[in-house]
Amino acid sequence: MPEIATKKPAVVLLSGGLDSATTLALAQEQGFACHALSLDYGQRHNAELTAAQRIAQGAGVEHKVVFIGMNVIGGSALTDAAIAVPDHATEGIPVTYVPARNTVFLSLALGWAEVLGAWDIFIGVNAVDYSGYPDCRPEYIAAFQRLAQLATKGGVEGGEFHVHTPLIQLSKADIIRTGTRLGVNFAGTVSCYAADKDGRACSRCDACRLRAAGFQAAGIPDPTRYA
Amino acid sequence: MPEIATKKPAVVLLSGGLDSATTLALAQEQGFACHALSLDYGQRHNAELTAAQRIAQGAGVEHKVVFIGMNVIGGSALTDAAIAVPDHATEGIPVTYVPARNTVFLSLALGWAEVLGAWDIFIGVNAVDYSGYPDCRPEYIAAFQRLAQLATKGGVEGGEFHVHTPLIQLSKADIIRTGTRLGVNFAGTVSCYAADKDGRACSRCDACRLRAAGFQAAGIPDPTRYA
Repeated sequence: MPEIATKKPAVVLLSGGLDSATTLALAQEQGFACHALSLDYGQRHNAELTAAQRIAQGAGVEHKVVFIGMNVIGGSALTDAAIAVPDHATEGIPVTYVPARNTVFLSLALGWAEVLGAWDIFIGVNAVDYSGYPDCRPEYIAAFQRLAQLATKGGVEGGEFHVHTPLIQLSKADIIRTGTRLGVNFAGTVSCYAADKDGRACSRCDACRLRAAGFQAAGIPDPTRYA
Repeated sequence: MPEIATKKPAVVLLSGGLDSATTLALAQEQGFACHALSLDYGQRHNAELTAAQRIAQGAGVEHKVVFIGMNVIGGSALTDAAIAVPDHATEGIPVTYVPARNTVFLSLALGWAEVLGAWDIFIGVNAVDYSGYPDCRPEYIAAFQRLAQLATKGGVEGGEFHVHTPLIQLSKADIIRTGTRLGVNFAGTVSCYAADKDGRACSRCDACRLRAAGFQAAGIPDPTRYA
């Protein structure tokens, strides 16, 4: 009788960008039964949610979108119409940093993991390109993992949560090479902080510049649609 | 010239129940300029949001309500219509436990604190009556405080966040005595897990029973409106 492998469930945070699409492909390659979670947090670049839906469909995984009114809190160029998205490189922590964003995202992923009986959460954070975002660093992820143990029914009962960050030390070019190897359709991903409603990129924001440089460094043609 | 004391800002999580109303009064007594945050998470007892608004108005503090579609995730009698609110006492972690709820709430409070430049967050968790909820325990709160340091711009730059839990070791009777001393209008608070749209309590759920027993133990007349 053939052995039937039961896949372990995992929650994968899926923004609709190139990093999270690659993270999903890596989680699938590792044999997880993935459940993709996107957050509609009043971000300007809503086209990324459409992209997330397309990526999840392509990967054949369940996809949920949770709305969070983070724009009520403001404080970021991505959620607050009064703060402009810069069209030039900036020093230090950028205005596109959304206060406590990854903590909110991981908390919701943790909640869904509890409901699904999953112990594994994947997030496509990157400490190389996003060194200015405190919540993209390995020590932050380790602290969230410790919190998850204490925060949950499952953790209290002795289960172990694992927050996977397979991209955390990769360059953008390496992420693009990995995604290409795994067949990720990068044309369907949206990275731009100021994409138009059809998902066409501005070419000027930090996210656009990083992405374009990544394709160039990887020696892979850039399929991004620009406005 | 008289000394002008500048009040330190604090974010206070305000659910509309008697615990968080007392927490707000305690934070004000400690001299904080309070900003109240309520979360609309698809909970059944929506009357508590109306109560939260009334409490914040009465206290003269800014109040924001952030919507989060946690019902998309489900898994709790408070957010999932398929799970009934029990009308009898239960053992272990109750079905009214909302997966990762306090983590989501504290994350949003942290985000708003960052925007306000506040270092203090108040939450009315209680480890005595809610011993079945993992995210009401002191060790959980300590872990969140450590996470806040690593998660934020301010924490990375050397600031120190403090998560205050003034009720964590108090009995319900002590909370009611404290609130009474501080002039909290308990008639305007809603604790019931299954309140009707006018905020009238069911008298049968765990939250109703705890509240009624608390007033009795405190020897203070119970102003709760029952359906």
